[in-house]
Amino acid sequence: MQIAENVTGCTPSNTPSPFQLRELKLALPNALAKSQAKGSKLAPLQFRSLVRNGHYNGTTNGQCPGYLQCNLVVLRKSEAFDFMLFCQRNPQACPLVEVCDVGSPHPPESLAIGADLRTDIPKYSIYKGGVLEKEITDVVKEWPEDSVAFLVGCSFTYDSALLQANIPLRSVEEGKNVPMYRTNIPCCDAGSLKGNMVVSMKPIKGVDVAKEVLLTNKYPHAHGAPVCVGCPQSIGIQDLNNPDWGDAVEIRKDEIPVFHACGVTPQNILIESKVEFAITHAPGHMFVTDRLSDEKVF
Amino acid sequence: MQIAENVTGCTPSNTPSPFQLRELKLALPNALAKSQAKGSKLAPLQFRSLVRNGHYNGTTNGQCPGYLQCNLVVLRKSEAFDFMLFCQRNPQACPLVEVCDVGSPHPPESLAIGADLRTDIPKYSIYKGGVLEKEITDVVKEWPEDSVAFLVGCSFTYDSALLQANIPLRSVEEGKNVPMYRTNIPCCDAGSLKGNMVVSMKPIKGVDVAKEVLLTNKYPHAHGAPVCVGCPQSIGIQDLNNPDWGDAVEIRKDEIPVFHACGVTPQNILIESKVEFAITHAPGHMFVTDRLSDEKVF
Repeated sequence: MQIAENVTGCTPSNTPSPFQLRELKLALPNALAKSQAKGSKLAPLQFRSLVRNGHYNGTTNGQCPGYLQCNLVVLRKSEAFDFMLFCQRNPQACPLVEVCDVGSPHPPESLAIGADLRTDIPKYSIYKGGVLEKEITDVVKEWPEDSVAFLVGCSFTYDSALLQANIPLRSVEEGKNVPMYRTNIPCCDAGSLKGNMVVSMKPIKGVDVAKEVLLTNKYPHAHGAPVCVGCPQSIGIQDLNNPDWGDAVEIRKDEIPVFHACGVTPQNILIESKVEFAITHAPGHMFVTDRLSDEKVF
Repeated sequence: MQIAENVTGCTPSNTPSPFQLRELKLALPNALAKSQAKGSKLAPLQFRSLVRNGHYNGTTNGQCPGYLQCNLVVLRKSEAFDFMLFCQRNPQACPLVEVCDVGSPHPPESLAIGADLRTDIPKYSIYKGGVLEKEITDVVKEWPEDSVAFLVGCSFTYDSALLQANIPLRSVEEGKNVPMYRTNIPCCDAGSLKGNMVVSMKPIKGVDVAKEVLLTNKYPHAHGAPVCVGCPQSIGIQDLNNPDWGDAVEIRKDEIPVFHACGVTPQNILIESKVEFAITHAPGHMFVTDRLSDEKVF
């Protein structure tokens, strides 16, 4: 009973002991049933447990509002330096949040208590030689011994702040994944890695664009302000109704498409650079952390 | 010689004595000829002198870059309280920079050394009963004894900052006045004053919009961030090629119209509220101050 209440009120500062974590796993189904019956939102620890146990494999936009979400890239150690350099040179597309120790699937506890990156993401993509081989819901067997796991900030992080500012999210409203597009905006090369930026798109009312820019600019660790507002063709997007990843959404008369750098950029880079082996999250299916979205805001 | 050099280097901290001001007037033609021959930009004091002496009656966009420009509204004392309340309630459209003492055409020396609001603006509009009666280049005879002169911030103020950020200004490039449009965005009423906001429009590249928003947001005393980006019909603008004031400008394929609250809003309010008597600047023809644009930036 004590534990179930802890679960509901989970914050980064409530660090359960290993014993509590075991108990938690047992207590979770009840806690989840209780919180869902109340229509309340899940805390990240609950959400990750649900994912780990195979009860959720959908997209994470709109999930655990107010918490930082991350893109995942797992490479072999031999490719890790180039990718780290790539992130350093392309901070808007690839804002690096954490990097795990070699071989470890566990991010620091300060980011996500008791997390396992092999199981706690709803869906993964496996790339071989730059080609998508398969999408699966856990990567325990695929995880390489000499792995380096990178967690890259994601724009879902500020969904909650946008909603609080009365800026609705069409993808969430329509129950869809966000639309993502390849662009002609080149990233800075790093070693063997090169390619163009991928952007996500939100339809925003013309009268709300300034507010959206000012708000998202406060989240540099989650791609920050938009890279383009309107003018899709000027960044190489020919047809908004045919996204390269995710689902097309309605753009209303009083709205304009607003494009943010997207954490699928690394996947595009891995494809274009024909990297030998990589595990990533499947587009739109993020790793939900215990860190508050605003924690790094300045 | 000494004085002419002072003129060229004029800043708000260089306060000339009345004697120097007289000398200045004599020295100006030479100083102007010299600075124009060099292709250099005029300092505000030089510019105002040129205007006062009837040598310039054009628009002020692109003039004296880096200095605060202001819209002028002159009312009789009986209307002054309502207008002041209107500015207080509509700070984005009417950011109040200074208000002169009753009867005085002189703003504080800290804003503009030796300035006379009856002569130092390139063109004025006279309104009677909410109808534009005439446009003239000085208002010495029209200035009422019980005048209250209001100086309201103007978006030309950040022209220089936009240019420095590599955001070009189409109106300046095309040698035109900026296009201004009536909108359906209501202002907050104040006493007898009511009406809708007027906006100015700049074509901005889609990839530059975020930069433009973040930059202009630093100038709340000059209308701040845009009120709408794209979607002109959503704010009641039917035809961008037919502005209500100023001149239409080209919008290129990779650009989007960006709308800022405009200091012509008071004129629209005076018209819609049928104010008995008012003097204003003619749209696009501003009062150029000695105050640096960045002085109030936070």
